[in-house]
Amino acid sequence: MDSPIEEYLHRVHAEISELRDGQPYSVAPKGRSVDPEDFGICLATVDGYVYEVGTTSKEFSMQSLSKPFSYGLALTEHGLEAVDAKVDVEPSGDSFTEISLAPKTGRPANAMINAGALAVASLIKGSGGKTALNRIVDFYSGFTDRQLTSSKGVYNAERRNSDHNHALAFLMSSFGLLESLPTTALETYLRQCAVQITCRDLSLMAATLANSGTNPVTGHEALGVEAVERVLSVMMTSGMYDNAGDWVASVGMPAKSGVGGGTLAVLPGQAGLAVFSPPLDAHGTSVRGEAACRRMSADMEMHFVRSARAGRSAIRAIHSIAQVPSAVRRTDEAAAVLRDLGDRGIVIELTGDLLFAGTESMIRELSTLNDDVEFVVLDARRVDEVSRMSHTMLANLEQQLRHTHRQLLFVDPEDRLATAVSATEGSTFVTRSTAIAHCEDQLLQRHSPELSTPSRVAVSEAPALSSLPAGDAEELERLMESRNYQDGEVVRRVGQRFDGVYFIVSGRITTTARDAEGNRVGLGTLSAGMTFGELALGREQRQELTQRAQGSVEVKVLSAATIDHLEKEDPRLAGEMWRALTREAFTRVDQYMREVTSLIRDYY
Amino acid sequence: MDSPIEEYLHRVHAEISELRDGQPYSVAPKGRSVDPEDFGICLATVDGYVYEVGTTSKEFSMQSLSKPFSYGLALTEHGLEAVDAKVDVEPSGDSFTEISLAPKTGRPANAMINAGALAVASLIKGSGGKTALNRIVDFYSGFTDRQLTSSKGVYNAERRNSDHNHALAFLMSSFGLLESLPTTALETYLRQCAVQITCRDLSLMAATLANSGTNPVTGHEALGVEAVERVLSVMMTSGMYDNAGDWVASVGMPAKSGVGGGTLAVLPGQAGLAVFSPPLDAHGTSVRGEAACRRMSADMEMHFVRSARAGRSAIRAIHSIAQVPSAVRRTDEAAAVLRDLGDRGIVIELTGDLLFAGTESMIRELSTLNDDVEFVVLDARRVDEVSRMSHTMLANLEQQLRHTHRQLLFVDPEDRLATAVSATEGSTFVTRSTAIAHCEDQLLQRHSPELSTPSRVAVSEAPALSSLPAGDAEELERLMESRNYQDGEVVRRVGQRFDGVYFIVSGRITTTARDAEGNRVGLGTLSAGMTFGELALGREQRQELTQRAQGSVEVKVLSAATIDHLEKEDPRLAGEMWRALTREAFTRVDQYMREVTSLIRDYY
Repeated sequence: MDSPIEEYLHRVHAEISELRDGQPYSVAPKGRSVDPEDFGICLATVDGYVYEVGTTSKEFSMQSLSKPFSYGLALTEHGLEAVDAKVDVEPSGDSFTEISLAPKTGRPANAMINAGALAVASLIKGSGGKTALNRIVDFYSGFTDRQLTSSKGVYNAERRNSDHNHALAFLMSSFGLLESLPTTALETYLRQCAVQITCRDLSLMAATLANSGTNPVTGHEALGVEAVERVLSVMMTSGMYDNAGDWVASVGMPAKSGVGGGTLAVLPGQAGLAVFSPPLDAHGTSVRGEAACRRMSADMEMHFVRSARAGRSAIRAIHSIAQVPSAVRRTDEAAAVLRDLGDRGIVIELTGDLLFAGTESMIRELSTLNDDVEFVVLDARRVDEVSRMSHTMLANLEQQLRHTHRQLLFVDPEDRLATAVSATEGSTFVTRSTAIAHCEDQLLQRHSPELSTPSRVAVSEAPALSSLPAGDAEELERLMESRNYQDGEVVRRVGQRFDGVYFIVSGRITTTARDAEGNRVGLGTLSAGMTFGELALGREQRQELTQRAQGSVEVKVLSAATIDHLEKEDPRLAGEMWRALTREAFTRVDQYMREVTSLIRDYY
Repeated sequence: MDSPIEEYLHRVHAEISELRDGQPYSVAPKGRSVDPEDFGICLATVDGYVYEVGTTSKEFSMQSLSKPFSYGLALTEHGLEAVDAKVDVEPSGDSFTEISLAPKTGRPANAMINAGALAVASLIKGSGGKTALNRIVDFYSGFTDRQLTSSKGVYNAERRNSDHNHALAFLMSSFGLLESLPTTALETYLRQCAVQITCRDLSLMAATLANSGTNPVTGHEALGVEAVERVLSVMMTSGMYDNAGDWVASVGMPAKSGVGGGTLAVLPGQAGLAVFSPPLDAHGTSVRGEAACRRMSADMEMHFVRSARAGRSAIRAIHSIAQVPSAVRRTDEAAAVLRDLGDRGIVIELTGDLLFAGTESMIRELSTLNDDVEFVVLDARRVDEVSRMSHTMLANLEQQLRHTHRQLLFVDPEDRLATAVSATEGSTFVTRSTAIAHCEDQLLQRHSPELSTPSRVAVSEAPALSSLPAGDAEELERLMESRNYQDGEVVRRVGQRFDGVYFIVSGRITTTARDAEGNRVGLGTLSAGMTFGELALGREQRQELTQRAQGSVEVKVLSAATIDHLEKEDPRLAGEMWRALTREAFTRVDQYMREVTSLIRDYY
């Protein structure tokens, strides 16, 4: 099936192909001609998927498209302040060949005009055995997924047609605006303009800028986020068009064009757009490139005001831990106490980005906790981007909570928040259930120490048998056999048939299942007094889960054979036992129902 | 507990209070003095919460802060094109009092300089029995939560000091650039400048712009999104500062200041910031206002490039319907068939915004469906903003799916997507379970019509009793009594004690519970052949759920009294029954375990 996005791009491509204005750039090496019919559009996402239509794999010269990337390299090497001292960030309102220097400082207006680009080129030096040009080409290559090269033929042709730029370079040098010989700066600049890219390359370069400087295909950090911010700001006001305001108002995306026919536009956080079409208008801008940017910004609402509507709801849900208990099975008494204490622990599920709005709503919620809340679990597993401010605010809050004897816990296997926010040992958990179990254990110890899980429970005291008439539990216990397991040993495995009812006398049993992707996931922990094995009575009488000993474990088993025997010899007792187990089963059904009810807004 | 955001604002307020440069604006009505110590900061979120520090409820004159709002009103009344013909969108680089008209067209450079603001004021006329001024004041009031007024005293003082603006108005009129008498335009302009607001008002006005033009407190659409986009674009390049590029590069937020001491800045989609501090620098900009914007943009990463990092993952999860079956209980055979067919239906849970990136990832997923998929359920309940493009793309996709005989269904109670995307009747559901039940029913009808839910099942055929020895089911049936219920009648209610096991002979029973917020939620539907009532055997022997007849229903009940009697008279049969019910119970536990496992990444 065709993707509607591809279809859309084909339609835009077909419609914009009708535009036949403009002339290709005329400077080219001998024997290399430019085909004005070439027309490609690529759209690359911030996860590295590239949609391609038309001429997307033919190489062309970067020309002025090199300017923002060299500017990025200079910013990286020298810092913002040092580069700002040489090149301003103001739209010039002049065409790209204008010799436009500020009246007082002599600084070029910005790095997108030739004067600014020459100043930037003069800042980039060879180092580590590499020439300035090699360093530039390698740096550019970091924004795409292959090694780029600079064309000597194109460079030679350009150099023969560079009188204006020669004049500019010497003039700037005469004012002391270059950090190298004027001919060196000029050569570096002309060679960077001769770097060969395809439309596909250009879309990945744009997507890398959209992705805060990290190449979405290779994962390489091509440019730091502060430099990205600066480069995109200057592209926004000075990248494309002599009329800065019109571009910001009508397109609202940072963009840049080159006389080689390439145009790139960046939708920060979302995508990079590249167009290749050689015919240029009087300003040296690709006619179809500009038209495609305008068209797609309008159709796809890529304007910076619209595309920034995101980020309202960082809190996905808030539960008390009574609503979402851990998977640890408690005695009826402990479970009842925890239901009463459950409001003292809350779980906040976060989602999306913790930029300003998301952070604010989370902080607002955390600042208005009820007085009796003792534990706050932040479930950070769905968090995407986290701003610095979010870390700072949360760290403050964690301190405040600690001073009022409350604990902030994290479910945060990828460490999006925990290390940056909290120095407290043992406050980070991989699963939500384990974090909540920790809260429950602490609450029981603080408020009902007598109910903290006993280490040993006689079968006759097991909750499952508590509804039996007097003496029956003891009689059943006499029919059971004792078994012992070592830490990690499998007690019951997926696929085993029902072979009896297991009563845990001491130790803990963990239950695991495979999720949809085949990963092993913990479903909970059973402790002394609990039963298992009956689950195999369910569908097809086969076990669906695996149970393992955690530490050394003693169980008593009423085997399937013993039960068969009992049903014949003492049907009354067998019936009582089944009734008790039915009650136990429906207690569990009830517990699952409650859990599902608490998840209900998610699930149904 | 203090909010860390309030603490942060207090710290910024204290630090910026150290700035003692600048002089307040000197034009004021007699007897009204300006206190240079007044200093307030308000931060309003797009859900209408306002953080306030310092002098936030004292009124001051809007002055130039009125310009973007009157521009918005003119854009609303006349459309973008008509207003563009009168006022350009370019940064002027001039100070706000400059007479700066374009050489060829005579258009003022933008609506933020006085010439542009006069042209805009001349476009706003009285209508519907209201003067132009009243219409302006009412329009401004729509951005805050109270009725604003224009001060006559301030107007009179300003008029006595408006020689420069008088000259400008007459000059513009002489060039034919005003749509009213020059004195009328001037009066309208000076009166709009005299509208009195507080710092709190200003933050709500900014938050309304941040919220795409909808007032977050009142819900009123103060300005359409296209006009908001235009107003914020012009504020970005021309709102604050003579050096447009520096503001974009270093602050990156649309902003505007007024000589009354107010400054507003907009973080699109997230928040509105307002500062009140009268001392002005040489450009007429509030010294502390500008400093606070720079400081907070840096600290809180509000620059347009950084704040737009959002919106990567619109797809929260993808399940087959076998992984997340509906709550309708099926016979074992039907359930087995549905497990095999389950990959033919998929559920895609969406979250966050469907702007470009979110839409693209969703469309990409939907464009690469396996050939055998027959149903796609889009769960849109967590979707926030939806772009026009998203609707268009999805509508295309829905057509493509229909042509390949696939159905797109929506879980979309708030109609974020369904109506805009699909014209198909019955494709929208309020809960996920009902949408999946629809898929299951259709799949069963198409692939195993013989397993479509039978309308009547004898007790002896009930799955719960299928494991009994021959003849036992019939014997139990003889002990049961028949009961009939009307549509909507409650069969079992929360809190009732166990009173027997119910077998559904015909009709359907719905089960509901209350969720954490006390809302009634459907847990599923039982059909002929299913049992209920045993759940009350669970915790404390009391029913936790309510069961109602759906349509007319016939059940057979093995009452608690009959069961007691049976246990004494025929313990073998009672034991067999309990064993069968235990098996049935653990079948359900198993089913819940599977469901919980499919939710496991969410839950544990």
